[in-house]
Order: sequence, then C-alpha cells, then structure tokens
Amino acid sequence: MSLNTFGHLFRVTTWGESHGPALGATVDGCPPGIEIEEAQLQHWLDRRKPGQNKFTTQRREPDAVRILSGVFEGRTTGTSVQLMIENTDQRSKDYSEIAQKFRPGHADITYFQKYGLRDYRGGGRSSARETAARVAAGGLARAALTALVPGIEIRGYMVQMGSHGVDRARFDDAQIDANPFWCPDPQAAETWADYLDGLRKSGESVGAVIEVVARNAPAGLGAPVYGKLDTDLAAAMMSINAVKGVEIGEGMASAALTGSQNADEIFMGENGPVYSSNHAGGILGGISTGQEIVVRFAVKPTSSILTPRKTITLSGEETEIVTKGRHDPCVGIRAVPVGEAMMACVLLDHLLLHRGQVGDAGGRIGG
Amino acid sequence: MSLNTFGHLFRVTTWGESHGPALGATVDGCPPGIEIEEAQLQHWLDRRKPGQNKFTTQRREPDAVRILSGVFEGRTTGTSVQLMIENTDQRSKDYSEIAQKFRPGHADITYFQKYGLRDYRGGGRSSARETAARVAAGGLARAALTALVPGIEIRGYMVQMGSHGVDRARFDDAQIDANPFWCPDPQAAETWADYLDGLRKSGESVGAVIEVVARNAPAGLGAPVYGKLDTDLAAAMMSINAVKGVEIGEGMASAALTGSQNADEIFMGENGPVYSSNHAGGILGGISTGQEIVVRFAVKPTSSILTPRKTITLSGEETEIVTKGRHDPCVGIRAVPVGEAMMACVLLDHLLLHRGQVGDAGGRIGG
Amino acid sequence: MSLNTFGHLFRVTTWGESHGPALGATVDGCPPGIEIEEAQLQHWLDRRKPGQNKFTTQRREPDAVRILSGVFEGRTTGTSVQLMIENTDQRSKDYSEIAQKFRPGHADITYFQKYGLRDYRGGGRSSARETAARVAAGGLARAALTALVPGIEIRGYMVQMGSHGVDRARFDDAQIDANPFWCPDPQAAETWADYLDGLRKSGESVGAVIEVVARNAPAGLGAPVYGKLDTDLAAAMMSINAVKGVEIGEGMASAALTGSQNADEIFMGENGPVYSSNHAGGILGGISTGQEIVVRFAVKPTSSILTPRKTITLSGEETEIVTKGRHDPCVGIRAVPVGEAMMACVLLDHLLLHRGQVGDAGGRIGG
Amino acid sequence: MSLNTFGHLFRVTTWGESHGPALGATVDGCPPGIEIEEAQLQHWLDRRKPGQNKFTTQRREPDAVRILSGVFEGRTTGTSVQLMIENTDQRSKDYSEIAQKFRPGHADITYFQKYGLRDYRGGGRSSARETAARVAAGGLARAALTALVPGIEIRGYMVQMGSHGVDRARFDDAQIDANPFWCPDPQAAETWADYLDGLRKSGESVGAVIEVVARNAPAGLGAPVYGKLDTDLAAAMMSINAVKGVEIGEGMASAALTGSQNADEIFMGENGPVYSSNHAGGILGGISTGQEIVVRFAVKPTSSILTPRKTITLSGEETEIVTKGRHDPCVGIRAVPVGEAMMACVLLDHLLLHRGQVGDAGGRIGG
Repeated sequence: MSLNTFGHLFRVTTWGESHGPALGATVDGCPPGIEIEEAQLQHWLDRRKPGQNKFTTQRREPDAVRILSGVFEGRTTGTSVQLMIENTDQRSKDYSEIAQKFRPGHADITYFQKYGLRDYRGGGRSSARETAARVAAGGLARAALTALVPGIEIRGYMVQMGSHGVDRARFDDAQIDANPFWCPDPQAAETWADYLDGLRKSGESVGAVIEVVARNAPAGLGAPVYGKLDTDLAAAMMSINAVKGVEIGEGMASAALTGSQNADEIFMGENGPVYSSNHAGGILGGISTGQEIVVRFAVKPTSSILTPRKTITLSGEETEIVTKGRHDPCVGIRAVPVGEAMMACVLLDHLLLHRGQVGDAGGRIGG
Repeated sequence: MSLNTFGHLFRVTTWGESHGPALGATVDGCPPGIEIEEAQLQHWLDRRKPGQNKFTTQRREPDAVRILSGVFEGRTTGTSVQLMIENTDQRSKDYSEIAQKFRPGHADITYFQKYGLRDYRGGGRSSARETAARVAAGGLARAALTALVPGIEIRGYMVQMGSHGVDRARFDDAQIDANPFWCPDPQAAETWADYLDGLRKSGESVGAVIEVVARNAPAGLGAPVYGKLDTDLAAAMMSINAVKGVEIGEGMASAALTGSQNADEIFMGENGPVYSSNHAGGILGGISTGQEIVVRFAVKPTSSILTPRKTITLSGEETEIVTKGRHDPCVGIRAVPVGEAMMACVLLDHLLLHRGQVGDAGGRIGG
Repeated sequence: MSLNTFGHLFRVTTWGESHGPALGATVDGCPPGIEIEEAQLQHWLDRRKPGQNKFTTQRREPDAVRILSGVFEGRTTGTSVQLMIENTDQRSKDYSEIAQKFRPGHADITYFQKYGLRDYRGGGRSSARETAARVAAGGLARAALTALVPGIEIRGYMVQMGSHGVDRARFDDAQIDANPFWCPDPQAAETWADYLDGLRKSGESVGAVIEVVARNAPAGLGAPVYGKLDTDLAAAMMSINAVKGVEIGEGMASAALTGSQNADEIFMGENGPVYSSNHAGGILGGISTGQEIVVRFAVKPTSSILTPRKTITLSGEETEIVTKGRHDPCVGIRAVPVGEAMMACVLLDHLLLHRGQVGDAGGRIGG
Repeated sequence: MSLNTFGHLFRVTTWGESHGPALGATVDGCPPGIEIEEAQLQHWLDRRKPGQNKFTTQRREPDAVRILSGVFEGRTTGTSVQLMIENTDQRSKDYSEIAQKFRPGHADITYFQKYGLRDYRGGGRSSARETAARVAAGGLARAALTALVPGIEIRGYMVQMGSHGVDRARFDDAQIDANPFWCPDPQAAETWADYLDGLRKSGESVGAVIEVVARNAPAGLGAPVYGKLDTDLAAAMMSINAVKGVEIGEGMASAALTGSQNADEIFMGENGPVYSSNHAGGILGGISTGQEIVVRFAVKPTSSILTPRKTITLSGEETEIVTKGRHDPCVGIRAVPVGEAMMACVLLDHLLLHRGQVGDAGGRIGG
C-alpha cells in the first residue's frame, strides 16, 4: 500500500525531489518482450520539457531519461524497470525566505504540518517536476499498449484557458501540435496567446481544462466496484499537481440532463455495438464500452505569482511573500502530456488485469 | 489488489448482488476498542433506505444490518468486521426481457462484454444496492473517527437538481434533514419537489450535484503522491454508481480563476493557521490544511426511464426497451448518505495511515 | 493492505470468530464462468470437519457453507464471492476462567497485549476454526484451477507424527484417504493410531509434519522477487494456526548437501524439459519448473493439554491453568485439507498473475 | 500488488540486474525525521560485500550506495527514498554459452519459460546481487527502528554449514564478527574454515543454516491472520536467493514434541510477562510476545560448481555445462546480513502497522 505508487498490475512508483540529484520512476509489472529504447521515452518527455517557449517556466532541464534496469537488448524482460532523470539546473539560490515562510496555495504548510520537516528547495517532493517521472513511465505504458492493442491512440489537448474555451466546431486534431497550448482550435490558440502573454507580463497565472481521449481501446476494461476504469482515471488525474476536478464524459454537466437527454442508445455495427452518442465517456458501470474514453480535468492557476500575499512563518508570525523564480503562468499547458501518460498507465494496467482475471472468457455480442 | 475493496489501512470489501440472498461489507483494519452496535449502523442505513417517500424507488427493503464478526461485548476487537444485510424484497418477476436486451446507460452490456455472463436480476452487482454496504461500513468508520477525533463532523447535502441549484445565501444546516432532498435551501427544496414530481409522473429522471463537507478534521491527513487525500476522495466518489464528475474546493471552476483570485491567504489564529478563504477545499498538495474539506460530485440521471430506447439483444439484433419497475427519478437523493459514508471511510483511513507512518512527528507552527 | 486477506489477484479475506454467529471468506478476483455449487465446496469442508473420529475434537459442527454472492445459475460471475459458514455448536459454557487467565502457547496474551481486549470464547479470531473459511475458498480455487489447468492435482498428507515418520518406500496414494491421518504409509498409520490414542487418554498432544504436492502445474508460475511461488507458499502455510516451519523440496536438509548432491540435472523429454531429480521442489528462482511442487510444514503440538501449566492473569497474578474442553491431540491431522486449500489458492493466484502480466509471451524450449 | 516490492507500510521495491548499470531499492513509507547518511547504510553493505576473503566470490564491487531522494539535511522527509548502487565490475566476458544453455539449479530455465527472454549476464535479475539493495533498505529500516524502539537489536549468524552445526554451549556473541562465517562458536568456525577450503579447491559448494534474532522488540507486533509476524518473516526469508526452508522458534523440530514439552509457561516479571522458555520463537498467534524473535533459514548449496552437469539448450538439445566464473562455495555466508536486513524491514513495517491501526489501545498486563 505504497503511497508513491499507482496501478494494480502495472505499478509505477515515483521518487525524487525538485532539487535533489535525480528523480525517476520504478515500474513494476511491465509485460515482457516490449521493444523500448530511451529515445522513445525521451520523445514524450520532450513534450513536457520546460523552457520551450515564453509560456512555460524558463528552468532549463534536458530531462534526459535513462533506463537502468528491466530492459535487455532493446526489450523489456518482465522485471522492474528503473527510469532515472537527473536534475541538472538546480540553480544555486537563496532559499532562506521560502524556508521560513509558507507560500499560500502551495504544499509548504501541509508538508510541514504532516512531516515536521520539508525539503523546501523548489517545492521538493510536491514540485511538478515529479510529473517528469510519470511521463517517462507513461511512455513505457504506451509502448506496451501499442504492442498489445493495435490501433490504440491516446491524445490530450487543452479545451479551456481561464474563461476562454475552445469551439468544438473548429476542433482539428492536426492543430494540437501546431501551437504551444496543445489547442485543437486555432482561433482559441491565438486568443490564448495574447491573453497569457498579458498575464505573464503582469506576473499573474490562470487555470485550464485538459481533455484526454483514448481511441480504439477494447470493451471490457475496468473492474467493479472500486477498480472501475473511471475510478482509476479520476484518481490518476486528481493525483496530478494542481488538479481540482475530474470529469468523465458529460461530467458535472450530466447533473443538468434528463434521462432521455443523457441516454446513449445502442445499435449493431459491423464489428459489434455502436452508440448514438457518448455522454458516458466510453464507460458504463466502470467498464469500457469500446467507444472513445473521455476524461477531463481542471488545473488551478499556480499560486506562484508576483502579487504579494499574506502568509505566516514557521514560528507563526504573520508576514507577506512574493513568489519569485521561474514559473508557468498556465501550468495546465504542461499538464497535457502528463494527463496522456496517466491515461496510458491506467489503460495498460486494466488491460493486464482483465487478461489476468478474465482471459478469453469475455462475451461477444452476436457471436 | 482487490477490486471490490477500497482503503489502505481501513479496508472495506463489499459483496453481494441486488437480488441475491444478501449483501454486505467485510471491514478489515478497524481500530480496536471502538464502541459500536447494530443500531448505530442502522441509523445511517435508514437514511438511504428506499421507499421512504414518493421520490425514491418503491422497493421496500428494511436494510437491516447484522454484525457477524469483529465486535465483542459492544466493542471492536481489531479483527475483521462482517456487516451483512439480507435482501428481502426480491420480487419474483419476469427477467426474460432484461436477460436478452441490454438497457442503454446501464452496465448490462459492459458486464456481459467483460465477463461473458451477468446476473441480470435488477442489475446484479452493478445495482446501487451495493451502496447499502458502503453506508454500513461508513457508519463504523464514523464511530471510529468520532472516538479518535473529537468534534469531527461529516455532512452531505444536495446543491443542484437538474439545472436548479441552491442559493448559498440561504444555506441552512438545519434544513438539510427537513426535506426529502437533503437540501440546505428551503426554497430550492420546494422548487425541486414540484420539478421532480413532474419528472416522476412523466417517467423521466434527472441528475444532481451532491456536496460533502468534513469539519474539524486535523491538518496533515493525506499522503504524497498517489495517496493524496483529494486523490482518494475522488476515487471514492467516482466509484459510486452513476457519478460522472468529482470536484475539490473550486473544482472545475478553478480553471477560470487567476492566481490572485484563487489564493487562500494564511494568517495566524489562536490554535494555528487560519485562511482568508477556502478555494482549495481544505487540501494543499494532497494533505489536509485543517479547514473544511469540501468535495462535490455529479450524479447522472438514471437511465431507467419510461421512454422507449433503442438497444440490441445478446444475439446482436436491434430492438427497443422500456425500463419498467421501481426506480428513483433522481438517484442523487440517495447518493447523499453514500457520499458521507465514503468521506468517513477515507478520512479514517488516512488518519490511521498518518498515525502509522508519522506518529507524533508532525510539525506544530509557532510551537 | 488488508491483513485478513491473502492473494494478489485471487484474494481471500476471511472473517469470523470461533464462537460468533458465523465465519466465512470473501473471495475477490475469481475468474468468471467457473462452474461451482455449494456441494463441491462442502466436499472439502467435510474433510476438515471436526468430530469425525476419536482423534479430532468432539465439537460437532456441520460446517455447512453457503454461497451468498458472486455465483449465478451455477457459475461464477467475476464479482466477489461470499462464502458463509454458520457456527452452530457454540456450547454455552463458563468462560470466566479463560477470560481472566492466559493459556500458555495460545494467542490469548498477545491478542490482549496488541488490542487491549479479546474475544476469549474458544480463542475467538485466533481459533483454528478460521481455517474452515480457507478450505471453502480453497474449494473455489480448485474448481477454477481444474477448469483452467486440465490434469492439475493437489494432494496433502501427513509424513510425520511426533517422532514417527512415514517410510517413503511404502508411500501409497490410495492409502491417504484410508486412515484418519491422511497417511500414505499404512504401517505408519497403525503406529500413529496407537501412539495418538495413548496421548489422547493422557491428555497430551503432539506435533506433525504435513506435505502438500501439486502435480501437472505449468512451468512459469511465480514472480520475482517478492512474489516468488515459494515465498507465497511459505507465507500461506506459515499463516496456518500452529505452523512453525515451512520447507520447499529438500527444505532445511538442503543445508547439509553439496552442490553436486543437490543438482537437478536437465534433460529433454517429449513435452519439454525433464529433470533427473527434484531437490528444488519444483521451483527455481521462485518460478515453477513444471515438476511436482512440493511444500512441507510443521505443526506444533496444541497447547491445550490436561497437565496444569503456570500462567498469569489479566491483572498480572501468577496462577495455573488446565485447558479443558474439546481439543485435538494432533491438530496436524486437520491441517492437511487446510494445506491443500492454501496450495490451491496460491497456484490459482499465480496462474492469474502470469496470465495478466505475461499472457502468451512465455518461452517454449525447442519451440 | 507489486511483485518486486515487500512490506505493507514500509515498502521496499528493488530493481536492477547483476550486470546492468546499477541496482537499488525504492523505499516508500519510511517515517520522517529519521537521521540517516550514506555512511550508515554503507556499514551494512560492507558486511555482505563480495571479495572480502577467499570464501566469497572474487567479484570486486565497492557496492557504494547513494541516497538520491527522500532525505534532506540528514533526515528522512517522509517521501520515497531512492537508494542506488552502481555496478562497476561487469567484467566483459563471453556469455554465448550461458546464453544458449540453462544452468541446472539456476533460474535460467524458469525465467525463459516464464518471460520468453532473459538477461543471461550473470543471472540478471535472479542474481544474488539483488540482495545488496535489500541490505541498503535494511540499513534504513534499522535506523528507523533504533529511533523508535530504544534498545532493539538484530543479530544474524550461521549455525550450520553442511552437516557441521554449532555447539550452543559455546555460543558467544563476541565471536560472530571475529570469523569470516558470522559463526558464534569459535571451534565450529575453525572446522568450517578447513571444510570450506577443501570444497572451494575442489570446485564444490555447500549449504548452510542462518539464524536471525531480534532482541527487545515490543510485544504486540504482527497482525492476524495473513499478516502474522511469522508469516511475513517466513516470506521475507524465503524470498532470499537459494533459501529452501524457514523456521520460527522450534521450527520443524516442533513436530516431534508433545504439548507439555513445547509449552512456554508464563510468569510475571518486573516489566511484564516473562516465560520459562521460548519454543515459540517469540511469536504467539502471529503476534510478538516481547521475547527474542527467532527465525532460521536454510540456504541450499549454489549450483555453480566445477563438476560438469547435464542440461539442455534453448533449442532443446541435451548437452553439458560447467559453471565457470566467480562464485561463493557457501552462499549462506553472505546471506547473514541479508537475513538481518529482512528482519529489520519486517519489524519496522509491523511497528508502523501497529501504530497505525492500534495506536495506544494495546493492553498492559497488571496495569
């Protein structure tokens, strides 16, 4: 019951602090015989790498991942895989203020209250740098998923920045990689660029909503009652730094619908059931239907802003703090590849679980 | 890695189907010496009991809970506690239609696709009757929490039915038990009564949003990185039947805020830190701050409606179905005590985890 | 991390006390579609049932098992299976002495020291009655194993009682069911009968060694490094009441061997590798070889004897106690079906694990 | 359910292969505020380090451990601790024979059968080098145990080599570190030296029995029913390479005893219960009594010997193999610090579990 671990059969334990020598992911339960090399993992890491444009933190980290175990001659062996990323840009700076004062909206105060001490350098364990390890593990999960489920695709993108949402009518997959925001709507991307530039200059930050979709995932993934696919996706996304809400399919909006509005009717297609709609987000009773699996999550604005904020010190004195340093005005941007990684890990995990418990005993309709 | 189990140290495994002889919860890891008797658990079960008014299913179940193990002379012994509820109202009806057709929006089709067979009587394992076992376990968790954390309070209520929300200005704790909707706003309760009555008569259903709040929970509960308090709360709520979204504090709305709008500033109170606001919902970095812990979840409208819906049969033929039988027009109502139960289980679990890993090593500010 | 649970994917949580209303096993992760009925489980329970001859406790329990969930129309559905056994012979007796005094060699004192209270009636949770739940779960595991691995056989028998061992030269499978001791050596069985009769009359007890063998289990079961097949078998057997030692293959005797004496040489048979011997007990590096899997465990003599023993009371006064009541002079006898049940559960669990992580990726020699 | 992980709350996940770039342990759940530095861990690693005398493999590894996370300013922070050991002596040798032939008694064949491929260099994941990571984690566990349980001591030593046992009458703690065998009996140590020298020269190997004792562990550690202290110790020891048997207290010998011979009578001492003897090995009903906790395990002779052995190739042809290279004639010697490490991890784990579930609710006798 390891609290730095997620997954049931495909288990990922992350370790490392923002300014320690290294961080990484210990991955246990990866299927054997999966072709993998560091370059494949690096591809995904480069997507979340900081300092790529003016909209993300200027901390410069190569985030170069090394495979230290579990892979032999280019294939996984079935033993634990260690993925290590060394921290290189640990700018020597003065941490005396942050050591004494708790940054509002950060984990500084709760880590101290829980553990009695904390690694205050750059947020230590609570820093979003931890998500680099998730992306590395997610890359391995993708490689295994692709080998086991031909045609499976996982795609993340941003659908809202601040109060500016995308127009689904303009949704274009090809646009997602064409702008710094993983935005599928080119017009929204332009709006966001101006908007975020203004926020950045004024030392402000803003929240965002990310959507992650999996296509061509098989029906039957997910398990009653506390290992439902949506349960595990909700946990996976909520565990990402700064996430405050998670939705499946219609999500919170389903509250406003009636049963007839929300119904996804079922028809028979060539290769099995097809649905009139996907309010359910591809999951019924916690088990995948074979439709697109759709999850969304909201990322709060980072609390690292230039406006002075009231806070207290270790000794309980009231004071003020301004969070200096290198920060993202919209941390949601870099949460996109992290959300994709979590989706990959959860789907692979449930694929292995299903194969283990059920094997070929599942049911074919019209079969 | 038991998928009918939740919790880390306080572990609840539920079992049973809607129309089997019984259902229940096997609770492992409950602290010893907790005073408990069946009547206490029954109090909570009675809150979710069906057939209490015209707004909930007319299935009549006493939902009488029996303690079969783990309690001796009125106190828990530290061994596994078996809580059993016998099913009494298993109306003998004709299941031939539901056995052959998949009800849209239900787990019928995915259970079949996953397992190759299903107990189709009343939804079997996927029926919301499973939540009776959660409420029983939650009652035990509450008793332990109350013994270990004096003054702790857990309260659930409905804040939205369909598109009709409550007015926070009229929020009145005392009203929650005064109407059939656990609604804290008396005017909203009246609106909902008329609205739901209309839906019920037309055989329609509607969704809802439930909020659950914990007061006087200590700071320091929750653990990085994949056992965050918000992560476990999200999983707990998402695992409840028909839930499609979960929010902590500002939730999805946090996406639209700026860093300065979202900041909860920190001041020093008599008994420790106090905050200017609670956008965070009482959780920072996955660890409780000592403020109110606030979680919300959306329940979709039940798919059991009287309007005919397109679907397919086991053999893949297209057809129609009308879900007859006894159903709730707004299943969200009975989800309120379930949400409370999940909150109680998660908090107790994290209290035990914290005591185990940290003991008294946590930090006191200004101490 | 449930401590009344064992297994990874096939998870068995037992509950209940010796003199409570009932006890049972909550089984999670059983594959779907397995044909099972109560009579099959009863067959195994009847083998460990007390009061069958003068050599076992005269407590009379039908040990009738009921399936309360997870089975529909004679087949498992993939959901949690509740197996309940009601306690009927809870002879109303005076427990005041045992409530105040700790029986030497029993868990009375440690349960009190750990939990601060205990259900002292007949040993409560620490009673060997708990093993009835294991045998029920083991019966389900056997049914699933048999369906998934044609030809698999699990057989337990006693190889030593007190200092009297069996003669392997006289080993005869057919004899095992032909005497009250599950003894494969008819001459040893006669010796034991006289020996045990004498012990019983003098109110004494004695230990035993049980061996459990699995035949036709596939190669490849077990997983490095902390889920080795021998690791999980050792844990499973050591968790049985009164067990003090566990051996795989040569066991403790392997310490006295040289490398050349201990080597199992490998040859090529028609259906794969064959070995010159089986010192390893069918497990190499924690993974099954396809040979017979051989585990042995020692059961200590029960401490319930008629000789007065020095002990202390709850309040710390020194005193004496004589354990009256209905007890087995050789508890090892009834441990045989329990050992078989644990073997069945462990093998099924690892079969599911292997299928989940590896699927068909395993290697065929000469293929 | 991570199979490269052990422990419930104090969880150790090991990773790495014999000839990969590095190996290590990811430790989760360590209590915060524990003073630890690399030198302390190195002390324990140096005890199992190879090449220290002619009786252990001549592979020369510094086994230098680095702490990569979870420690800040010399104290644990409560987050995951990464302990890494780089492999330096990966002698470039020709692995073509071992790549094609399975070494009898090794995991070569089962790893291939399970996973379809294997890292054959020096045994890969199945190499005893994995135990270096256990010793590092055990060093951290010792530091935490010592901080939490003043006076606790853990000591391992060898009590049998081949058929030569120690004489308990000559048992001398001070001798344990005075010879290359961790032997408490100086005369036995001399006998073993000559005996092993002869075996080494003839390219033979031999087995051994190691005993590990914990002193001053509190009563109340261990949990029914499947997390018993002896269950977890048995699993921990059986998971060590080449271990074939595990005993608690009297162990296998308890089978030959009668109830009156085996009884540990209870008396009242100044600080609580005292016992007339310790046949139970300090554990009753799976829970520690406060006496010495005594576990023994048998290590088989390594199969790496110079005598040619029959085996088969990947393609199924029969052949012979002689295991060349650097090996220990008695691998049991280096298993001593490993056994100590496992004892430390299991005791800390159960200390945290007890603190979490029970807190201060345990019972005081005469209190």
